Amino acid sequence: MTLHPSIAAVRVPVRRTLAAPEARGGGTGDGRGTVAVACSGGADSLALASATVFEGHKLGLRVVGVTVDHGLQPGSAEQADRVVAQLAAMGVDETLTARVEVDAASGLGPEAAARKARYAVLEQVAEHLRAGLVLLGHTLDDQAETVLLGLTRGSGGRSLQGMRPAFGVFARPLLGVRRADTVTACLVEGLEAWEDPHNSDPGYTRVRVRDRVLPVLETELGPGIAEALARTADQLREDTALLDDLTDRALAHARRDGGLDVATLREEPPAIRHRALHRAALDAGSPASELTRDHVLAVDQLLVGWRGQKWIDLPGPLRAIRRDGLLVVEAP
Amino acid sequence: MTLHPSIAAVRVPVRRTLAAPEARGGGTGDGRGTVAVACSGGADSLALASATVFEGHKLGLRVVGVTVDHGLQPGSAEQADRVVAQLAAMGVDETLTARVEVDAASGLGPEAAARKARYAVLEQVAEHLRAGLVLLGHTLDDQAETVLLGLTRGSGGRSLQGMRPAFGVFARPLLGVRRADTVTACLVEGLEAWEDPHNSDPGYTRVRVRDRVLPVLETELGPGIAEALARTADQLREDTALLDDLTDRALAHARRDGGLDVATLREEPPAIRHRALHRAALDAGSPASELTRDHVLAVDQLLVGWRGQKWIDLPGPLRAIRRDGLLVVEAP
Repeated sequence: MTLHPSIAAVRVPVRRTLAAPEARGGGTGDGRGTVAVACSGGADSLALASATVFEGHKLGLRVVGVTVDHGLQPGSAEQADRVVAQLAAMGVDETLTARVEVDAASGLGPEAAARKARYAVLEQVAEHLRAGLVLLGHTLDDQAETVLLGLTRGSGGRSLQGMRPAFGVFARPLLGVRRADTVTACLVEGLEAWEDPHNSDPGYTRVRVRDRVLPVLETELGPGIAEALARTADQLREDTALLDDLTDRALAHARRDGGLDVATLREEPPAIRHRALHRAALDAGSPASELTRDHVLAVDQLLVGWRGQKWIDLPGPLRAIRRDGLLVVEAP
Repeated sequence: MTLHPSIAAVRVPVRRTLAAPEARGGGTGDGRGTVAVACSGGADSLALASATVFEGHKLGLRVVGVTVDHGLQPGSAEQADRVVAQLAAMGVDETLTARVEVDAASGLGPEAAARKARYAVLEQVAEHLRAGLVLLGHTLDDQAETVLLGLTRGSGGRSLQGMRPAFGVFARPLLGVRRADTVTACLVEGLEAWEDPHNSDPGYTRVRVRDRVLPVLETELGPGIAEALARTADQLREDTALLDDLTDRALAHARRDGGLDVATLREEPPAIRHRALHRAALDAGSPASELTRDHVLAVDQLLVGWRGQKWIDLPGPLRAIRRDGLLVVEAP
């Protein structure tokens, strides 16, 4: 019997991820490595969990299925129990329900606060299990949506670089897999996926991107747009890594007496100078959500368009001022 | 009488552009500098021409209005005459109709071939007039559309950097001005704008981006999306300039005996390595339209994932091969 192509599409990248040495992690008493797979019960993470059981067991790994109960919706505990039962039926070696408290007063939006709480508890779970990896079910469609959401911020490559394929203990093996393949894989395997009601609530920008923006882009600009967005994210992530690194070096080189040496920083190319000035303002406490490119360009004029300006007002409130050959960002 | 805000929105950046020293150019017999303004008769370039007359004359510049007749549509000569009459009525110092032949067999698409012919003839006109600048009427909306078109290519920052505010003898003073302001400026000044029938032909991807994609983005993601896209282009243009420069240096450093020194190139960060390999393949004759990121990543494995691979096939057809410590791209 040949493998259904959607199941293969999910399994292949999972196999590649699990074959990496870090998947084995600290190992358990019996010497087997452990991987955890986070599962909400949606098609993405159900298909991921099933592939992880199959590929993980072939590699001699212990597979733990973890579901997170945010306690935000009525019936969330029942949904968590249902996922646990599905994971057990798939043949995971252990199931675990992590309950989190979302900090409503964190200053983050409700989505961001829930995400932060979820990653924090999954990290604790990984440590507790001595798991080498925690797999997350984000797909190519999620990546494309993230890039489009970044476009609305308009802050260049950084906002378009999407999600990282791996960070810390986390890995996202399905970032190159279409969501439709995870849905089909679940159907073929008889896994009944849960539809998170949030996923169809047009009050969320991400839902509107998924249901209204991406389909229009696919119709008008051609299929392949989601893949193109994901590819762009990959390249911009590489670029951003290098540009951030060059900015770190430029800042280290220019820092002097509580400010930045104007003559040194002025020699940097615009891409680095602007990043360094943005960073200097953030470091001084200017809020990221209010600090714009126009602010940065105005501060840059203190370096490259100097004609005795007084200072530049920045959100905070802060002031960027040029004094004794130094650029200083300080409270007014 | 206060100036209408849309007229001010067009005039301010034109004034800034004309105040730059290059606007004076070679000068004419009477010592005045000359600027040319390209005008199709559309709202963008009519508003630009009018602002250029006003601001140029204040600065003592001679203003020449140029219209290009591509001869592609029936009635194009009459349309050119109409634009010439409008330019004359605005008070330009001279009008000029440039007729171009579009090379249908250039291998470019019809839009790209017409654009290439247009820029070439405008350059000749500038030389003939000894003009310091040729102003083009592209707006912030054009810039946003260009970024969205670039997204479909999915080739990272390069495809998202939009149009340059200035290149060679050309300048685009209206890249930060909304198209709606140019339309309003024409209405207020009684300039009757011409609607290019191509601008409403949904056979053109750009028209679909304008009429169907951008409006959906504005509705679903919020009104500032065009501005956000333009801002992103500005930042990515800076980044690309630096990354291209670093790539030039890396290639110069690694070039040896008709190939690239593997040990040298391997030390470069991924962003530069991938650009260098992409460039090496293009230089060897691989067609840009067929050379993908996957090709580049496969060639990169010859550098950083070497396990005795034979070679990588590239469009051309070409082969990338590792031989005697060199990476070589050659015909098979």
